[in-house]
Order: sequence, then structure tokens, then C-alpha cells
Amino acid sequence: MPRKVDHNERRAAIANVVEKLVFERGIEALTIRDVAKELGYSTTIVSHYFSSKLEMLLFTHQTSRSRAEKTLREAIDEETDLLECLEVLLPISKERWRDWHTWFAFWGMAPEDPSVSDEWRTGTSEANMLFARLVQRAQAKGQISMDVDARAAATEIQIYINGIASLVAQDRKSWPADRQKDLLRHLLSARLLAAAPPACPVSG
Amino acid sequence: MPRKVDHNERRAAIANVVEKLVFERGIEALTIRDVAKELGYSTTIVSHYFSSKLEMLLFTHQTSRSRAEKTLREAIDEETDLLECLEVLLPISKERWRDWHTWFAFWGMAPEDPSVSDEWRTGTSEANMLFARLVQRAQAKGQISMDVDARAAATEIQIYINGIASLVAQDRKSWPADRQKDLLRHLLSARLLAAAPPACPVSG
Repeated sequence: MPRKVDHNERRAAIANVVEKLVFERGIEALTIRDVAKELGYSTTIVSHYFSSKLEMLLFTHQTSRSRAEKTLREAIDEETDLLECLEVLLPISKERWRDWHTWFAFWGMAPEDPSVSDEWRTGTSEANMLFARLVQRAQAKGQISMDVDARAAATEIQIYINGIASLVAQDRKSWPADRQKDLLRHLLSARLLAAAPPACPVSG
Repeated sequence: MPRKVDHNERRAAIANVVEKLVFERGIEALTIRDVAKELGYSTTIVSHYFSSKLEMLLFTHQTSRSRAEKTLREAIDEETDLLECLEVLLPISKERWRDWHTWFAFWGMAPEDPSVSDEWRTGTSEANMLFARLVQRAQAKGQISMDVDARAAATEIQIYINGIASLVAQDRKSWPADRQKDLLRHLLSARLLAAAPPACPVSG
């Protein structure tokens, strides 16, 4: 068992450095040599844990995604309000911004590679399922109409969050945390949340 | 003049190959050597046109973005309907999908580099201005209420389009063109288009 734990810990440590270097220097500049250097390893040691750069990047993406999913699951378990659950995913902190950078970078990898497209599909479908759970819980609380299809609503939520993150990614200074949260609230209120229905004309 | 034309044409040819290789092999695998090989050039010739890999990627991003902006401007000039103007930007064709892949890949570059963050900011602000023009035109035609703030509506449109593209990027098979267009229409109708207002309760 100790060896197994050590193996996983080393892989996690490597993934952490990969994320850091991709953030600091860009995915196009990443080399296994730089990763090894940063950790004080030889490239041979890194190659012992990952058979290729692609595998190393895939694992980094999985790690970053699992971390965000865990945060979201915990928020769901703690019965946190829908909007607050979703806000934790926005790039409003240094850590979450780094996660988003990893995800966007990863979406620039080769789509024809099956291991890449499998991980993409798993990520988006996992997010959709978690959001659908959130919607169903909000429906049970009367915050969202029972007429709403939970999976379709989850897809809309993915669009709002990924869309906001894409704008932040391109112009961080223009998007302080409050602007991101306000816009998410605005989009959700108008479409999903029964508590704040869209303004309706008095006549007609 | 001929030399200048040749210079620009060569840069465009290199950008085209960069986009192709990033799409086929992923941005993390791109090397100047591979780009040169694909064109039958020596790496020295490529280095004559771009002083670094970063500059080469920046120019590729600009080229891809300008192409999409040109398509959008033409659609605006041809008085094309709002929704049709926006649809041309969705990843519904092989060409547009390659553009989106380039953009996502580029968002994984180093955010701390000023030339990268400048190009990001230019891209998102140019898109916002073009969308705002579209919204104002739709307002003049009575398709969108005059009460709507054109820049804010443009930001929402960016979120819908980038958000849809982000889902397509992760699971292309699940997103045929019609599903993308239907969802865009649905999001716009509910929020912006006066022609299809959100359903309002009769009482209250």
C-alpha cells in the first residue's frame, strides 16, 4: 500500500506543477523537461509516472475537474442555495481561474485522439448530471418550476457558466467577482428561478 | 510592393498550417519544425516570418478571428436576420469548428504575456461591438425592445455563443447543427427577441 500511495501522490504533485506551468507559460510551451526541473526530478522519473505528455495532460485535466466537481458536490450536500453552488465554479478566485485556464487549454488539444475526446465527454456529462441534481433539488424546494426539464436546464446552466468564464478568460480585469455573480444571477433569474420572474407587460 | 504581398501571403500560409496542425495534433504538440516540414520550408525560413512560436500563434489567432469577424460583417451588411447572422459563428461546419478549436487552444496560452492578453481583449471587445451593432439594427426593426441596453445584450449573446461552442467542443457527436441552432434560438427568444416573448402568467 505505501508504494501505491506514493505513486498517486507523485502523480498529483506532477499534475500540480503541470497546471502551474501551463498557467504561467502557456500550454504551447510545456515540456516534460521543465516539469521535471521544477520538481527536482530527472525526466526519467517523470516518464515513470506518465508514459507521454498527453497522458500527463489528461491526468492534470482529470485532477482539476475532480477538484471542481468535489467542491460542487460538497455544496450540494450542504444544502447550499442553487446560485451559491454555481458561483463556486466561476473564475472568481485565483485557484478557480487556474482551473478554467487548464480546461480551456485542454480544449485546444487534438480532438481526434480518443483518450482526449473521452475525457472531454466525461467532463461535460459529469457537469450536466451535477447541475441536473441541483435543478431537481431547487424544483423540490419550489424555486424552479416542475415543468422545467432538469437536463435541459442543466445544459443552459453549463452555457451560462462556460460562457461567463470564456469572457473572463479573455479580459480578467473587466470581470471582478461581483460582475460575474450578478450576470449569472441575472441569466438564471430570467430563465429558471421562479423567485425572480422576468418583468411582464401589464397588458397583453 | 510584390515583396510585401509575398511576405503577407507566406505568413497567411504558415498560419493556415499552424491551425491545421493544432487541430490535428493539439497545441501542446506544435513545433516550428513540424510547421516548416509541412510547408516544405526550413525552420530558418519560418523564423524569418515569425520571431517566435508565440508570435506565430498570435498571428494565427488574429487570422482566424478576422475571418470570423469578416463573415459576421458581411452578414450584417447583407441585412441578414439577427439569428442567421449569429448562426454563422456556431461550430456547425468543419471550418468554423477549426476556428473554435484555435480560439480555445489560444485561451490556454500564458495569460501573463501582454501580447497574449492584448489579443484576447481585442478579440472579445471586437465581438462585443459587432454584436451590439446587430442588436441596434434589430432594435431599429422592432425585433428587440428599445429598452434593452445594446452592449449588455451583446455580452449575453457572447455568453450564449461561447457557451454553446464550449459544449460542442467537448462532445461534437451530441451537437449536430440543428441542435446548436435550436438552442441559440431558444436562448435568444426567451431573453431578447420581442417576437417571441417569455410566457407570462395571466394573473400577477
